[in-house]
Amino acid sequence: MTKSFHIESPCTAIQAAIDHKINHKTKPLGALGRLEKIAAQICLIQQTTSPVLQSPTLVIFAADHGIAQEGVSPYSQDVTHQMVRNYLQGGAAVNVFARQNGLDLLVVDAGVNHDFGQITGLINAKIGFGTRSYLHEPAMSINQCSKAIEQGAEIVASLAHKGSNVVGFGEMGIGNTSSSAIIMSLLTDFPLEQCTGRGAGLDDEGLERKRKLLAEGMRRHHSARTPLEFLTTFGGFEIAMMVGAYLEAAAHRMVILVDGFIASAAFLVASELHPAITSYAIFSHQSDEQGHQRLLQHLGAEPLLKLDMRLGEGTGVALAYPLVQAAVNFMNEMASFESAGVSQIQEH
Amino acid sequence: MTKSFHIESPCTAIQAAIDHKINHKTKPLGALGRLEKIAAQICLIQQTTSPVLQSPTLVIFAADHGIAQEGVSPYSQDVTHQMVRNYLQGGAAVNVFARQNGLDLLVVDAGVNHDFGQITGLINAKIGFGTRSYLHEPAMSINQCSKAIEQGAEIVASLAHKGSNVVGFGEMGIGNTSSSAIIMSLLTDFPLEQCTGRGAGLDDEGLERKRKLLAEGMRRHHSARTPLEFLTTFGGFEIAMMVGAYLEAAAHRMVILVDGFIASAAFLVASELHPAITSYAIFSHQSDEQGHQRLLQHLGAEPLLKLDMRLGEGTGVALAYPLVQAAVNFMNEMASFESAGVSQIQEH
Repeated sequence: MTKSFHIESPCTAIQAAIDHKINHKTKPLGALGRLEKIAAQICLIQQTTSPVLQSPTLVIFAADHGIAQEGVSPYSQDVTHQMVRNYLQGGAAVNVFARQNGLDLLVVDAGVNHDFGQITGLINAKIGFGTRSYLHEPAMSINQCSKAIEQGAEIVASLAHKGSNVVGFGEMGIGNTSSSAIIMSLLTDFPLEQCTGRGAGLDDEGLERKRKLLAEGMRRHHSARTPLEFLTTFGGFEIAMMVGAYLEAAAHRMVILVDGFIASAAFLVASELHPAITSYAIFSHQSDEQGHQRLLQHLGAEPLLKLDMRLGEGTGVALAYPLVQAAVNFMNEMASFESAGVSQIQEH
Repeated sequence: MTKSFHIESPCTAIQAAIDHKINHKTKPLGALGRLEKIAAQICLIQQTTSPVLQSPTLVIFAADHGIAQEGVSPYSQDVTHQMVRNYLQGGAAVNVFARQNGLDLLVVDAGVNHDFGQITGLINAKIGFGTRSYLHEPAMSINQCSKAIEQGAEIVASLAHKGSNVVGFGEMGIGNTSSSAIIMSLLTDFPLEQCTGRGAGLDDEGLERKRKLLAEGMRRHHSARTPLEFLTTFGGFEIAMMVGAYLEAAAHRMVILVDGFIASAAFLVASELHPAITSYAIFSHQSDEQGHQRLLQHLGAEPLLKLDMRLGEGTGVALAYPLVQAAVNFMNEMASFESAGVSQIQEH
């Protein structure tokens, strides 16, 4: 990787002040549960006891996968570019939820196998017309992987410069649960079978075929060793771009919202490269996709939502955002025992 | 109970049309998980495939409990009226979350042991200055219980007449996890110990004392038999008022958002009186209070959120509301495969 990232965990000197403020709000100690932890995390990231979320932005990276043509998904590869148009027209689930909850939505062509021509609203960061099939050769070249990481970083740097301090990433790419399953298995030592799920809706037979194909792909490239080699060999352009986006967001000390299975696999790669990134991450939801629960456990992550969803796109990020906003709002808006004249717990 | 309620489950003739609309949205079948079930439920309640949520309202019922003076809470009874003032001044957690998520907030004095005098914004439905202690006598008289149910119904009827079609209920009352634990134990056959938790923050010793006191209270009134007798003997004015509010909301075919442990105990009483009420209920969150998980299982309820919270006030309702709104929004705003020109799943 040519681009380097400077990522540090936040300084914890402010922790006592944060805890004091939370514990003097008009509620029993700890009664806001997870929201208190999220509030404390954001305060640490922003080094303040009065945090602010500015210009929340959700970036969807879309790309195609050579493996999709081997029969790992019940959907045709065309669905990737069709869904990109759907995002641009505002008709997908993520559009509805981002609109409702006040997140800006950016759509990035990271490498869709389609010529969009002149099309309004699409960010062109195309690395290629889809990856190659790792049943035959590495999904991408080292140069392509580096370029994807740089592009992802550039997009986030531009958001940071415009004042955004909270960002989440979604993805679209028929075949990308396959890449994620292999990358997860290689980086966590969970057996491939436990990492491989039904994706967009495989039946039992399809799932069996997917598992066999992925195992074959892994055997073919057994010399890959490092996180970046795994990403290059089995990844997708959208996944690599997301890795760069995560790293740049942490370098800018932004709050990072992690979506579902694919987004978590990309996060896993980023966290292997720079473990300190974890301090900046809030996990939005646990997907129904096989493997995601284990992946979250591996990452030590507690997702905010568990709604049996398995859609990707950043839908988990968009739906969880009001909870993140609520954590910030109670820090800023709730009265303290003193200010409200409410008695604290009695000593016995 | 003098007041009668006419509550019917929604007609299911429209179910196929609802399922068709959900299944043709641009997403894999079932990929929105719980949100699809919530959407279908609201469609059924409103008998439409294009549901609308109007004037969402959260009503907080506050009242005091004789049992509080026996030492079942680490907080003094004064905290009830102090927190009522906090709600009226906008400084409590529920104020912050309701404001953020666009719910109107009403605060009702159901029977606080305090004379508020002239005070702006408080709905006066006071049944008495707190209940009596059920260590010595029934918490309220049959007349008081009936009156509380009627008052709760009246408040909701007025909301329905003003056009609100989605309502949730919160509560405040030092000592009210005790009432809820006994009522839960009597109506579910779970042993009292499994229903009794730390409330606003008892330590081990305090919890032990609370359990002994509640067991003593139950022994003293072993002749109580029916849900209404349980409510009269062990309930609180805010709990009884909430029972009436639930029943009236279901009679008006409103969407009902159920909050945490106390709100669920009140719902349990209401559902024993009119089982059809369950069709109208969405359970917002699972509290960290001991007993709530079992109570939700008993009710067959799947809560939307599990955030380790234990605050009451309706905070779970206010935080879950954007998910309910999201369910309605995807039904109305998401494109279908046909309208977006997206290919459906391939036949094998």
